[in-house]
Amino acid sequence: MKAAVIYGEKDVRIEDVEVAEVTKGKVKVKVAWTGICGSDLHAYHHGLGVAYEEHAISKRKVPLVLGHEFSGTVTEVGEGVTNVSIGDNVAIEPILYCGACEYCRKGDYNLCEVSNVGFLGLSDDGGFAEFAVADAKHFHKLPETMSLEEGALVEPTAVAFHAVRNSGLKVGESAAIFGAGPIGLLLLLCAKAAGAAETFVVDISQERLEKAKELGATHVINPMEENAEEKIMAITGKGVEVAFEAAGAQPTFTSALAALRKKGTLLVVAGFSKEVSIDPNALLFKEAKIEFSLAYANDFPTVIKSIAEGKLDVRKVITRRIKLDELVEDGLELLTEDKSQAKILVSPN
Amino acid sequence: MKAAVIYGEKDVRIEDVEVAEVTKGKVKVKVAWTGICGSDLHAYHHGLGVAYEEHAISKRKVPLVLGHEFSGTVTEVGEGVTNVSIGDNVAIEPILYCGACEYCRKGDYNLCEVSNVGFLGLSDDGGFAEFAVADAKHFHKLPETMSLEEGALVEPTAVAFHAVRNSGLKVGESAAIFGAGPIGLLLLLCAKAAGAAETFVVDISQERLEKAKELGATHVINPMEENAEEKIMAITGKGVEVAFEAAGAQPTFTSALAALRKKGTLLVVAGFSKEVSIDPNALLFKEAKIEFSLAYANDFPTVIKSIAEGKLDVRKVITRRIKLDELVEDGLELLTEDKSQAKILVSPN
Repeated sequence: MKAAVIYGEKDVRIEDVEVAEVTKGKVKVKVAWTGICGSDLHAYHHGLGVAYEEHAISKRKVPLVLGHEFSGTVTEVGEGVTNVSIGDNVAIEPILYCGACEYCRKGDYNLCEVSNVGFLGLSDDGGFAEFAVADAKHFHKLPETMSLEEGALVEPTAVAFHAVRNSGLKVGESAAIFGAGPIGLLLLLCAKAAGAAETFVVDISQERLEKAKELGATHVINPMEENAEEKIMAITGKGVEVAFEAAGAQPTFTSALAALRKKGTLLVVAGFSKEVSIDPNALLFKEAKIEFSLAYANDFPTVIKSIAEGKLDVRKVITRRIKLDELVEDGLELLTEDKSQAKILVSPN
Repeated sequence: MKAAVIYGEKDVRIEDVEVAEVTKGKVKVKVAWTGICGSDLHAYHHGLGVAYEEHAISKRKVPLVLGHEFSGTVTEVGEGVTNVSIGDNVAIEPILYCGACEYCRKGDYNLCEVSNVGFLGLSDDGGFAEFAVADAKHFHKLPETMSLEEGALVEPTAVAFHAVRNSGLKVGESAAIFGAGPIGLLLLLCAKAAGAAETFVVDISQERLEKAKELGATHVINPMEENAEEKIMAITGKGVEVAFEAAGAQPTFTSALAALRKKGTLLVVAGFSKEVSIDPNALLFKEAKIEFSLAYANDFPTVIKSIAEGKLDVRKVITRRIKLDELVEDGLELLTEDKSQAKILVSPN
């Protein structure tokens, strides 16, 4: 079958690979759509880091089929599989976990000690391919009212959903989202679904802010043009209950903390390229919290229900649909340059 | 009456001042014991900062009677006072708050928008005196089983108690306390009272570590001699559920974060003289939390009960008792130099 295989930095090849065998407990899907994630971009530009050594669970290392945000239709199930059947449309939960360590046993399998944050498509073969085969636990059946395009958006939505749940955001409270990339936009949708009253989206790209407005942000702020925390303070009076750091830089980190009201929470979902500094006294005098949210655990079922019931109209984050053959040029390269792009979906067909 | 009055930096005078009148809603106590706090030391060495301007609630500015950790016996009550009577032994809750702003209404009066963290003894006359007069709401009756020495320790204990409650520490979990000054030692007692299994106390003073051992720390660590986070990891396997920052410096902040297990919480109670830097990626990969805890709110009643019932043997943090006349030389100056001192209590009699 055709697949996009990553060998290393700037080395993603569309080539013919063999489909894995469907053994006991495994499921095979015909892939419908696969989204391009920031971590795919990072892998493309900087290589796959840890995946140059064999992963503790997958026992695989590069070359690997890239792609971890995907949906498809089940074409084959191995012995003992009961959660999905042939013909089911499914979303794939790509996170790898042992199921046996203390964190897995507590339900925090995103913190699995054996996996150390491994994913299908980053630590094992993933979804930029015609077919994918994985353990049954990675597959979630989609309701009939839900499209396969939406199915491919379940994974990034789960990242935002997990963050909003961790943040403790409550109905009627205010939220500020720093960074309007795909995760920032999905945070906006999840915060609105959770009942946020005012929603502020902060980004230096006017195009991304337009998108945020289209998705229902009550206020958008370009910090190149106005001071974000001052505007948020002026509108809310006391600051926001929750700020989300989805940009990953010192200026947004500082601004997000300054925008918090007393007892407010900064929820960090972004990765950072270096350390950041904070003023602990300012945070002490408002009894602030800084929380970090990683991927998701036990979020797929509720995300799927929320999308299926129309509570999360995630289709609006899709800005482009391309073919697998075009992945490098019209996907990975384009996303690096064109800030008007949010989520690009890739079809192998 | 005799009182210790602060005029500014290095200018605390033992002098004769008039006792305020006991008007409607006010209570007068004959002071028994007043503890010396780190903020008294800070005021002595660096002046009273904001108190050079009139406080929004007390309408007072320097010169002020210093001291905010005190107990005494009620000698007079104004019209309408119902919570205490003449002859009652009381602990004084010195925090100033308006009772009407949004934060006060929610019970978070430590975050009062009008007071901006004011205290009797720092923003109004306090307890280094023979008598003190204040609004009835500042007085909490002590049970007969509790001494006036213990009464003077309720205030700093409430700081530690509030922090432990905010931290979410649960029975059987592990706690690491960075900084073994009076608040660090009281954190240890509160963490143990909350059911902590292993308790680590980290300090560079061997004398303070001895004191921590005496108070029941299961492990003490001197980071000049061994790596604190490595030792904590070696003993706990995965790190502690809660670390407390009661030292206020970059090395302890960094070490406390490194000592956390996945999903662990760093609870910051210390003030800092400058910014600190953090590695957000390391915290993301363990979904850590950093929380800040300021003073106390609604903690005095439970602290008093816990001390009275023997759950918190706070007397052990007292290292010295002096007279009011000796406050500067044998109190403020001694505490600056002698790290074997924890809590020094001052008697005006």
